[in-house]
Order: sequence, then structure tokens, then C-alpha cells
Amino acid sequence: MMMLPDVDFLFHLADVAAAQTLPRFRSRLVVDNKPKEGFTFDPVTEADREAEKAIRAAIGQRFPDHAILGEEFGRSGEGDLLWVIDPVDGTRPFICGVPVWGTLIGLTVRGKAEFGIMSQPFTGERFYATPEGGYGEGPHTGRYALAVRDVGGLENATLFSSAPELFRGGLKDRFQTLVDAVRLTRFGCDCYAFAMLAAGHVDLCVEPGLQPYDIVALTPLVERAGGVVTTFSGDRPEEGGDVIAAATPQLHEAALRLLNG
Amino acid sequence: MMMLPDVDFLFHLADVAAAQTLPRFRSRLVVDNKPKEGFTFDPVTEADREAEKAIRAAIGQRFPDHAILGEEFGRSGEGDLLWVIDPVDGTRPFICGVPVWGTLIGLTVRGKAEFGIMSQPFTGERFYATPEGGYGEGPHTGRYALAVRDVGGLENATLFSSAPELFRGGLKDRFQTLVDAVRLTRFGCDCYAFAMLAAGHVDLCVEPGLQPYDIVALTPLVERAGGVVTTFSGDRPEEGGDVIAAATPQLHEAALRLLNG
Repeated sequence: MMMLPDVDFLFHLADVAAAQTLPRFRSRLVVDNKPKEGFTFDPVTEADREAEKAIRAAIGQRFPDHAILGEEFGRSGEGDLLWVIDPVDGTRPFICGVPVWGTLIGLTVRGKAEFGIMSQPFTGERFYATPEGGYGEGPHTGRYALAVRDVGGLENATLFSSAPELFRGGLKDRFQTLVDAVRLTRFGCDCYAFAMLAAGHVDLCVEPGLQPYDIVALTPLVERAGGVVTTFSGDRPEEGGDVIAAATPQLHEAALRLLNG
Repeated sequence: MMMLPDVDFLFHLADVAAAQTLPRFRSRLVVDNKPKEGFTFDPVTEADREAEKAIRAAIGQRFPDHAILGEEFGRSGEGDLLWVIDPVDGTRPFICGVPVWGTLIGLTVRGKAEFGIMSQPFTGERFYATPEGGYGEGPHTGRYALAVRDVGGLENATLFSSAPELFRGGLKDRFQTLVDAVRLTRFGCDCYAFAMLAAGHVDLCVEPGLQPYDIVALTPLVERAGGVVTTFSGDRPEEGGDVIAAATPQLHEAALRLLNG
């Protein structure tokens, strides 16, 4: 029998991560440069490393047989159950003091993302999903079921991406056609925009070059809310790559038509 | 004798505004299009209107002789003391559910911004300044003195602007030279980035085409923190226009050299 987590355990993982991230948020951080990519594209902070250690320890204690893939410390273990962790998704907003980063913790079952939580400890918000449903909660909202909205076509849609410089070459031009087609484009949110899509405030999230740990935790949030999340090729997103999340199949298809030229 | 507000009164204004904005945040808003500019550039919400009414009423009750300039209802009154209000700065993040908008309330004395508060009620943060000093406070931080940081030259600086599409024509190219010169550029924050500059987490904020109500409240925050805020011409920012805030005079000069070509 497969040992699966419950919501309490997802919250426990968010708690142990928050104990490492929150005290370091808004402090003067030492930011390491990963040698190949430099500060702009992949900053690593002490918060990142310590939070991942804490999450790994908590998973190891409860589910010693589960495999773990984390941004900071790579892969450990084997089997059908794989936890996928980004301890601080949105390190750039984190180091700028802006509370739109999140701790992402997902669980794939035979490769499919089935459980996920996005925790933003500064605002006190959590967005989470199990096979039974997806929910958000926070200090001003209480607990509510995640549900996408349907604004109709692209002309009414709000699009998010973390940064314009992610779009290069031909993709830059094709992304611009999407920007021109939608009602509003905003940058700067990373995982927070996916949570807002699942909560019904945003219609499209487009992120090229994601890693598995950037998207696995967010996938069940979007899917349980009624949204669609795939690669630009229309495949499952668990392996990362160029990823699009859409509130409706109509927007997903219309946006991919433009992005794929 | 001039009747001036104290911090308690600034907080009172933030409270009456929050009572109008916070219950409407994350709800399904009806967004009016201002006919000439359209949704993308100046959405107006019920929150905006009701918060400005509440702020105006509270000012009128305490300081009936003060003049008021607000985004929604224009100017009323005359004299040396002018309140300048943007009830929801960052309406675009507001309608997307992202808590980086703020209520901006400033007071100019003979044209110079002397008092200001930026209130973000969802996070519970307030950033405020009087002639005596500038402070931030929030649920995880307590109260702390605002103070800019000094990272040295542009190559170490973090730059914010609310959106890339604000830069057009020649300014687009000159802004790109600044983007190329700094360490990190982020979009999407509006007033929140100015608060983070004053709190020492961001080094440059560049916003073309501001109105007085976009910048008056933020000016004393930046100045009391030790930063510099001017138009691109180096003039006082209270009348709006193309505005730059910098953590240090060195960054201010270096950035303006690039922006002015």
C-alpha cells in the first residue's frame, strides 16, 4: 500500500520551511552566484538551502522510502513517489523584499503531480491541492476552494510571466503577439501568479525554461481549480520546459497557437 | 499657526482606506474603463472611489481648511497645505490579486512633500514619514527606521519599474541601456518598489509619466531613508512626470546619465 501525505503533512512541511525562510526575508542576504548562470537567473540564498534541508528532513522522518528532488540538493531515492521541492521559488522577489515568492512542495505519483502546496509565509497564505481538491487560505480570506474564472477569449485575459528577458529569439516575437492579444500583461510574480490563476484572478501564466521543481507543486493547484497546465507542446508539465497555465481550454489553445507561431 | 498631522492621523487615514479596499481585494471586481485610456493604463475600481471618499471625509473632519488632490475626484480647496491621495496605487496588481498595491496619502507644505504614508493592508504593512523620520512596520518586522542601502555602482544595483511598456520611443532604448548596466531588473510593483527602496532592498525605481498622486506620498519615505527622488531633469518630484528614485546620489547621477542619453 502506498503511503500518501494528508493536508496536515503538507502544512507541516510549509511550517518547517517558513521557519527557515521568513527570518531571512528582508534581512541583508549573502547571495551566492551560481558560477555558470550568474545572479540574474538563479540566485541561491541561505534561505533556499536551509529550507530545503528542513523539508528533506521532515519528509525523511515521515516517509523514509519516498524519493526527493530538490532545487538545491538534487535527487535522492527511487520509486513511484517523488517529492519535488523549490524551497524559495522567486528568489529574485525574495532578495528585493517583495512577498510574491513561495515555497513549492509537490509530490508526483508515477510521474504525475498529485499533491502540491505553495506557501507564502510573509502574507500567511497557502495554496494547496490533493487528489480530493484545491484550496487557498490566508489571514483575510479564510479557506476557500480554488476555482479558475472564464473571461472568454484572449482579448479579456490577464497574462503573467516572471520577466520579459526570459523570451529570446523567435519566442520573443511570438510572446509579443500574445502580449498584443491580451487585455493586460504583468511581470514579476513567479509562482504567485500561478496561485492567482488557480484562485480566479489571472488567466494565463507563461514561463519558458522551467525546471521540474518550478512547476510540479503548482500543477495540481491549477488542475484542481479547473485550469490547464502543459508544456508548449501540450504535454504534461512535470518535467518542466516551456510551460503554460491557462484558466480555460479555450485560452490554452488560443495562447499556444500564438506562442508556437 | 499651521495645523499639521501626526503619525496617528496618518494611520487613521490608512485605516479608513483599508476598510474600503481590503474587503474588495480578491473579490470579482467591476472594472470601469476610463474612456480615453482604457483598461491597461488606468483601471478604476470601486475600491479606488470608495477609499478616496473615506480619506477625504476623514481629512475634512480633522483639517477642514486643508486642500485635497485625489486621483478619483480631483482638487478641492486652496492654501499652503495640500493632501495628495492615490487610494489604490497599483490598480493592476490589485485586480490580479497581487498584494503589491498600496494606498498613498501625502501632504505637501507649500508644494514640498513633507508627510506620507504607503499602506498595504493585505500584508498589514505601513511605510510612513513625517519631517522627523521615516519608518516601516508590519506583522513580521515590528517597527523599523527606513534606511537605504549603498551597493556602490550600477553594476550592483537592483532596478524596478512597474511595466516595460511604459518606455516608448527613444526612452525605450535609453531605459534598455540602464537595464543592461544594472545587476537585476524587476517589473510589477508600482509603489511597493519605492517602499522597498526606502527599506534598503532595492536601489533604483524608474517610472515615466507619473501623476502627483503617484509620487507625493512616496517622496518623504525615500528622502527620510536617505535616498534621492527627482524628475529626470533633476527637479523636485511633487508635480509628477518622469520620476527616478535612487538609494544614493551616485546611483541617481549614473542612472540619469543613461536615461537622459
